[in-house]
Amino acid sequence: MSRQSNRTTDSKKMNSELFTLTYGALVTQLCKDYENDEEVNKQLDKMGYNIGVRLIEDFLARSNIGRCQDFRETADVIAKNAFKTYLGVTPSVTNWSPAGDEFSLILENNPLVDFVELPDNHNTLVYSNLLCGVLRGALEMVQMAVDVKFVQDTLRGDNVTEIRMKFIKRIEENLPAGDE
Amino acid sequence: MSRQSNRTTDSKKMNSELFTLTYGALVTQLCKDYENDEEVNKQLDKMGYNIGVRLIEDFLARSNIGRCQDFRETADVIAKNAFKTYLGVTPSVTNWSPAGDEFSLILENNPLVDFVELPDNHNTLVYSNLLCGVLRGALEMVQMAVDVKFVQDTLRGDNVTEIRMKFIKRIEENLPAGDE
Repeated sequence: MSRQSNRTTDSKKMNSELFTLTYGALVTQLCKDYENDEEVNKQLDKMGYNIGVRLIEDFLARSNIGRCQDFRETADVIAKNAFKTYLGVTPSVTNWSPAGDEFSLILENNPLVDFVELPDNHNTLVYSNLLCGVLRGALEMVQMAVDVKFVQDTLRGDNVTEIRMKFIKRIEENLPAGDE
Repeated sequence: MSRQSNRTTDSKKMNSELFTLTYGALVTQLCKDYENDEEVNKQLDKMGYNIGVRLIEDFLARSNIGRCQDFRETADVIAKNAFKTYLGVTPSVTNWSPAGDEFSLILENNPLVDFVELPDNHNTLVYSNLLCGVLRGALEMVQMAVDVKFVQDTLRGDNVTEIRMKFIKRIEENLPAGDE
């Protein structure tokens, strides 16, 4: 499905439940399509990446945010602007590494899992892994290579959901990037 | 994925773009999985049905709306409450049949198609068909059997998107209903 060039940045504010259930249908479909959780996790990350490389343009047009000065500013923009805009929640930014190249996003409530319980036979499924791909794809488009992964998940009985983000390198401006 | 019993009706308001792109990923996946558009349309309707039978409970809890007196009231609640809540848009209700058992929902902007152009090889794909299933499933849970289908679609060059809804019958309260 390709992008229309003439769309506006008009936004529709919606409650999250239809999104949550539709995301559930997507994960369920992938669980049917792929042999094991590992493959589903990979596929979710890849889909998320392709979404992220598109979503960033909408985000930049909407938020009027310029280039971040450092990774700390990036972390704040992700938590307070991006998550708030597209998921309706604001994670806290914590657990900085001493070098300032790693932090965690802590979600007290992850809207993606509102209706969900993991079946016993999917105990290595990273249900919300799409989000990691979205973050990775979006940041790549602003020349930042990052590693993103879930390290805690309320679906697995943790008290909160924690996404760990690690800065890898700045990408040269003139490298081509796009769908994986 | 089964439902948690302890979730609240707290709602997260989000912009529609992440939902729109995630829905696109779902449709793209189904186009890979199934041989032809007809099968994809069926699958989207079925997924929508399973979403609708769950979403209705959230809707009733949230909106505090009782049993509708007639199909006209149902139409109004769908347009002004349900679409507004879960998609952020309010379709107009028009084209009533003389018998009052059919109407159309006209969407000037369908958030599902914001980033989408149909590829040439999918000209019988009903891209947003999930919505028909959602409406069918949700109404079935309040004892109304309805037929729902797209009759116009901006993705096919129509000026608006039109969903046609036809009342079939009232369902006996004591029939079991659930996932298809």
